[in-house]
Amino acid sequence: MNDKISLKPRALMYPAPAVIASAYDENDKANACTLAFATMCSHFPPCIMIAINSTAKRKTLNDILERKEFVVGFPCINQVDETDYLGIISGYDEDKLDKISWTTTCGDKVHAPIINELKVSVECKVINIIEVGSHIQISGEIVNIIADKSVLNEEGKISLELLEPIVYDDVLYDYFKVGSKIADAFNTGLKYVEKK
Amino acid sequence: MNDKISLKPRALMYPAPAVIASAYDENDKANACTLAFATMCSHFPPCIMIAINSTAKRKTLNDILERKEFVVGFPCINQVDETDYLGIISGYDEDKLDKISWTTTCGDKVHAPIINELKVSVECKVINIIEVGSHIQISGEIVNIIADKSVLNEEGKISLELLEPIVYDDVLYDYFKVGSKIADAFNTGLKYVEKK
Repeated sequence: MNDKISLKPRALMYPAPAVIASAYDENDKANACTLAFATMCSHFPPCIMIAINSTAKRKTLNDILERKEFVVGFPCINQVDETDYLGIISGYDEDKLDKISWTTTCGDKVHAPIINELKVSVECKVINIIEVGSHIQISGEIVNIIADKSVLNEEGKISLELLEPIVYDDVLYDYFKVGSKIADAFNTGLKYVEKK
Repeated sequence: MNDKISLKPRALMYPAPAVIASAYDENDKANACTLAFATMCSHFPPCIMIAINSTAKRKTLNDILERKEFVVGFPCINQVDETDYLGIISGYDEDKLDKISWTTTCGDKVHAPIINELKVSVECKVINIIEVGSHIQISGEIVNIIADKSVLNEEGKISLELLEPIVYDDVLYDYFKVGSKIADAFNTGLKYVEKK
């Protein structure tokens, strides 16, 4: 049935996201960086966890650790160039947001910058910080969600299809769009529940 | 430029994955559950972080905490029914893997079950456990990757396009396929580096 082999260990996730974390530095200058190490991590309270390389030059990481508040925004496929750029260059070397002509507004519930050009952003307060391997894991409680009305469905909920988020492949270093819907969750598997 | 509103805080990630964690219980019976709270979390050593609801009935969580070894597998779109089922029912109530006729083999490097039907699995040793909100965050060092040759490209690397992983939308409770490639990472953003 199978024809399997062992591969050299490396970090792996399918699919992985490309998201943008942003925070203010000590002078209230907004910095941002692109991350693929990010996930929801709690329902109550609602939380997100981002992991950032502590061995690399990461200004946004430093800002988040200092300020304890940050924003995570979800770029869409027509922002893939800007998203990629924000993951290549360090904020210590260039004024990245200025370079791509992106603008920010301070969050409603946290003192951290929301990138105006991103259609959905979550405002987070740091509730846990740990170091695991080469990365610092930062868990943030989501205290507010800011969404552009253009990505909301008729019920006022965020539509993934309207948002058009970016899938990142960390093995072949590619970006993908999300494709078509294949099934309803908590539904398509019920056939096995009923099966005797 | 923007027409934005605040939404009630909730966990949010675009895109989120649907992955399957598996572990042995105290009798070496294999259990598995589907998770959307999962991410790469360290490059050196290579690690993955999964967060599982500790307030719900989760046999696989208990098994991972007991055995300190687990496997994460990446289902493909034609396994969406089985994947959904493994997230609906608790292993305390049904022999889930038996119900969907999936089989397991013990890992090469860890004492945890690899689901034979999944084309890519990572074998993990627990290196950190913390509680954040309603969930337990478990970081595992990836000590081996098992991949079906059918999902490897000509260079022997895993191809996302051949694997066909599942995107999960936790807001509208839908599953999606990954669509077409849109850009090369660490490349398409270089136009901004060169821009003066």
